[in-house]
Amino acid sequence: MGALHKGHAALIRRARRLAGTKGSVVVSIFVNPTQFGPREDIAKYPRPLDQDRRICQREGVDLLFHPTLSEMYASDASVVVNESSLSAGLCGASRPGHFAGVCTVVTMLFQIVRPTTSVFGEKDWQQLAVIRRMVRDLKVPVKIIAHPTVREEDGLALSSRNSYLTPENRALSSRIHAALIASVMEAEAGETSVARLRRGLLRDLAAIPGAVTDYAAIVDAESLEPLKKLGRAVKARALVAVKLGGVRLIDNVPLSGVSK
Amino acid sequence: MGALHKGHAALIRRARRLAGTKGSVVVSIFVNPTQFGPREDIAKYPRPLDQDRRICQREGVDLLFHPTLSEMYASDASVVVNESSLSAGLCGASRPGHFAGVCTVVTMLFQIVRPTTSVFGEKDWQQLAVIRRMVRDLKVPVKIIAHPTVREEDGLALSSRNSYLTPENRALSSRIHAALIASVMEAEAGETSVARLRRGLLRDLAAIPGAVTDYAAIVDAESLEPLKKLGRAVKARALVAVKLGGVRLIDNVPLSGVSK
Repeated sequence: MGALHKGHAALIRRARRLAGTKGSVVVSIFVNPTQFGPREDIAKYPRPLDQDRRICQREGVDLLFHPTLSEMYASDASVVVNESSLSAGLCGASRPGHFAGVCTVVTMLFQIVRPTTSVFGEKDWQQLAVIRRMVRDLKVPVKIIAHPTVREEDGLALSSRNSYLTPENRALSSRIHAALIASVMEAEAGETSVARLRRGLLRDLAAIPGAVTDYAAIVDAESLEPLKKLGRAVKARALVAVKLGGVRLIDNVPLSGVSK
Repeated sequence: MGALHKGHAALIRRARRLAGTKGSVVVSIFVNPTQFGPREDIAKYPRPLDQDRRICQREGVDLLFHPTLSEMYASDASVVVNESSLSAGLCGASRPGHFAGVCTVVTMLFQIVRPTTSVFGEKDWQQLAVIRRMVRDLKVPVKIIAHPTVREEDGLALSSRNSYLTPENRALSSRIHAALIASVMEAEAGETSVARLRRGLLRDLAAIPGAVTDYAAIVDAESLEPLKKLGRAVKARALVAVKLGGVRLIDNVPLSGVSK
């Protein structure tokens, strides 16, 4: 989607390392309309293309794919790739059609670019899970690599939408990650009840002035199904979406259970 | 879907010619459950694999791809490729979900086999149009080749389902193609009114003893949109689906308008 920040730069560097000297690194920049809802921010979504191009050059990108709308979508386009299980909850619940738009455009980009490997950020954990499922189910011949979320010094996950925050809300926004980290520490201290961990998470998010929690969930990291208990064998993930002054921010962390 | 007949053999020969001596010809045989409706004939659909294999060998096929159900679909598969415009009418109206099943499995087969060129029969004209649209919209890097319908001597379009016909209905079934040819001749004689051509077609089909017409349509060959008038610039196609003794038969022919 462009508006490249240090998180994207880290994905590009990961791709550059994976490609080595013989492979090529392709970056796609396309603000995809089909993944925005009717009342979402596509018109004001940042498009600093010159800056994006410089970042790509600096990071050793071989090809920047920046198609026009009509190159991607015919006016009578009628084909959608839809994932119906992992897409249903979390961000999918408040953004109907979002993941169908994502799956469709990512399928198209994979068909056009035909990468052997593609790097996605863990910040959009549900998107990552949905894309892994899409690739698995449609047998797309690409290896999906997850790259850890890059954060500001105070913990805020990097996002192109962070630029919408007022200075006050930017200061408050670090408390989203802090709330997630508090859950991680409770789990490391031996708390295995997902209900109790989630209550603590919701309480911390509710304590952020002006914050409206869209969701706070502790789920199986792959299936995104709700969990009851953490445990050594359980790969859990805590995911949140919070609106701060109308800006929707998402973040997530792994939660590992310890045996008591 | 296997149960290969002379129509499939013609598609394979076309692929063999297109591949030349350097290219490889791959045939997929997979009776895809997701394109059958709940009351359709998947259980009794013919699966004469040994015979299919002999036909493939005789026609110079390099690779026969015959996956199991679980190789194609995970038990928690949740991704569907859906075409919503061309799929809505004609066969799609009486077979809900059929074209989503077709689009999904064909996308998967294209991802697995990664052909440069793929040959489809014109007998399933709507399927051909839907697959062309799917390939166009998802940017799948494959060239779709349409191959003319192969017919029995009396005109019946070859289909694996013809084997379900009683001898009586087999004899009557040739009148489906005859009805289409009558429309072609009326159009060649100068009839341009689609309503009148369609009335004649419906009348001829209704005159077949025991036949139940599912649809008879004269549409734009590519968009499958209804037409009012034939003309030189119009690519029209007449498509029919008829049940004979419970066996659903489809057929179609091109209709070219002549200037009066």
